[in-house]
Amino acid sequence: MRKQESELSSWIDEYHNGQRYGLQGEVIVKKKNKYQEVMIVETEKYGRGLLLDNCWMTTEGQEKQYHECLVHPAMCSAEQLDNILIIGGGDGGSARECLRYKEVKQLDLIEIDIDVIQLSQKYIPSLGNHAWKDPRLTIKIQNGLEWVANTKNNYYDVIIIDSSDPKGPAEGLFNRSFFQHCKRILKQQGVLAAQTESPEAFLECHINTVRIIRDIFRYADPLYGSMPIYPSGWWSWTFAAEDTPRYHHPIKSRACEITNACEIWSPRWQKGSFEAIPAFIERELNK
Amino acid sequence: MRKQESELSSWIDEYHNGQRYGLQGEVIVKKKNKYQEVMIVETEKYGRGLLLDNCWMTTEGQEKQYHECLVHPAMCSAEQLDNILIIGGGDGGSARECLRYKEVKQLDLIEIDIDVIQLSQKYIPSLGNHAWKDPRLTIKIQNGLEWVANTKNNYYDVIIIDSSDPKGPAEGLFNRSFFQHCKRILKQQGVLAAQTESPEAFLECHINTVRIIRDIFRYADPLYGSMPIYPSGWWSWTFAAEDTPRYHHPIKSRACEITNACEIWSPRWQKGSFEAIPAFIERELNK
Repeated sequence: MRKQESELSSWIDEYHNGQRYGLQGEVIVKKKNKYQEVMIVETEKYGRGLLLDNCWMTTEGQEKQYHECLVHPAMCSAEQLDNILIIGGGDGGSARECLRYKEVKQLDLIEIDIDVIQLSQKYIPSLGNHAWKDPRLTIKIQNGLEWVANTKNNYYDVIIIDSSDPKGPAEGLFNRSFFQHCKRILKQQGVLAAQTESPEAFLECHINTVRIIRDIFRYADPLYGSMPIYPSGWWSWTFAAEDTPRYHHPIKSRACEITNACEIWSPRWQKGSFEAIPAFIERELNK
Repeated sequence: MRKQESELSSWIDEYHNGQRYGLQGEVIVKKKNKYQEVMIVETEKYGRGLLLDNCWMTTEGQEKQYHECLVHPAMCSAEQLDNILIIGGGDGGSARECLRYKEVKQLDLIEIDIDVIQLSQKYIPSLGNHAWKDPRLTIKIQNGLEWVANTKNNYYDVIIIDSSDPKGPAEGLFNRSFFQHCKRILKQQGVLAAQTESPEAFLECHINTVRIIRDIFRYADPLYGSMPIYPSGWWSWTFAAEDTPRYHHPIKSRACEITNACEIWSPRWQKGSFEAIPAFIERELNK
C-alpha cells in the first residue's frame, strides 16, 4: 500500500519527537475530562483501541504483548497471591491477566480516571473481559499516590504499576516517594511490576526509573520486549522484590495454569527477555 | 508534539497493512531504476536514511540495532573468518561490522543495485565508513542468486543475507534453492545469518523462512529484537550451522574484539534474544 491510497483514508497517529506511528481507522468516541482526553477508535489492523491525550495505550490486536509481559513475571513468582494491587490499568487488561490465577483472593484496581474504565468497558469489553464481573475485583476511582500512601504496611502480594507516560495524571507514578510507599505496603515475599517506558524513545525516563526502583528495593531488573503501537516499538517492564530476585523464577504450577492462554509470555520468553538488555543500557545502569 | 505542529512539516512514511511509521524530514535524492526506487532522506530524529520502494531500510541513528544483530552472532562463532559473503547490504553497515574482525581476509559484498551502494556512499558515508576503503572488501554488482549458484563448495566461513523484504529484487533470497546453495558454499564449520522479517508484521514469511532454513541446515534458530523503523518495530534474524549450533557460543576473544564498538550486541544480549521467542511463534515452529 503506497501513499496515494492511504491519503484517501483516515489515520490516527501518535507523534513523538519527529516520529509518528499511525493506524488506519475511525474515531468512535472522544471525551476530554479534567485529567486527559480519552479516545476510543476502530482500527483496521488491530481492532478497537484506546488513546489518552493522543498517545496509543492499547488495541485489541496486540494488547497481550503488553499485559502478559507486565503481569506474569510478577504473578508467577510472588510467594502468595492473596491481595493484588493494580495502579492504573483502567482498560482492564492487567486485571484480566491477574484473575487467571485461582489463588487470587482480592484484586484492587485504582484508576484515577473513571472515563477510561467506563469507555473501555463499553467499547472494548474484550480487554477486561471476565474480570469486570469477577467478584474478586474492587475498582476505586482514586489517585494511585493517595492509595498507596493510605495503605497499611505489608499488605499486598503483588503490586502492578500499569501507568501511562510520566506527564499528566501518571507523572507521580514515576517518583521516588511513590515507589517507597509501594515497598512499604508490599509483603516481604511479594513482587512489584512496573511499566518503565521505552529504552529508546524515553531513554532518560527509563534509566531514571530503573535506578529509583533499584535504590529502593533490594533486587530489581528490567525486562525488554516489543510493543508495536508505542513510540519506537521497544518497551521495558521492571520487576522488584525484597527477599530474593524471585521474579526470575516462575513457580511451575502457576506457569502451567496460564501457559495455554498466553500469546507472548512463557517461562522461556521471560528468561530471555530479562537477559536481552542492550549493551548501551547495561553500561549505563552499571555506571 | 501534537498534530497541529507536525502538519506544518514534511513526513516520510512507510505504509504497511493499515499501519504507518513516519519520520519528519526531507527527501534529498530519489532515483528510480529498473529494480526499485532508491530514496535518501534527512530526518530530524535519526539523521540520514535510506528507503527502497518507500520502505525504510536504515537510518544513521538506529542502524546498529539491525547490523550488530545480523552480523555478530555469526561472525563471533564461525570457526574461521577467512572468507565472508554478504548478499545485499549495499548501504555498507554489515560490511563495516564484519571488517571489525582482524581475522577476516576477504569480504565479498554482492549487491544487485549499484544505486544503493553509490547513493549510500555519497550521502550516508557513516554507514559503510572505513569498510568502503578496506582492501579486504570486494564489491560485485550482481544478483545474489547467481553468485551463490556459481560459487564453489565449502568456500565461505560466514554468509550474511542482508536483504530487503521478499518482493521486488530480494524475492528469490527467501527461496529454498537459494538457501540450498548457501549451505553448499558454506564451510562445514561456518555460520549463516539471515534477516528473517518481523514475527508480527510478516508472520507468515517469518515462519516459512525459518522452516526452510531449518529443513536445509542441521541447526537453525531465530533471534528476536527491536527495529524501530521497520513495520511493527519487532524483528528477527535467523542463524544456521551444520556441525554444531555454534552461533549460540560467541568465541570469547572475538567478543572482546568488538564489545566496545557495540551499542546493542553483547554475549548476554545475544543469549537472551535467542530465548526471547514469543509463545505463539514457539508453538507454530514446533508444529
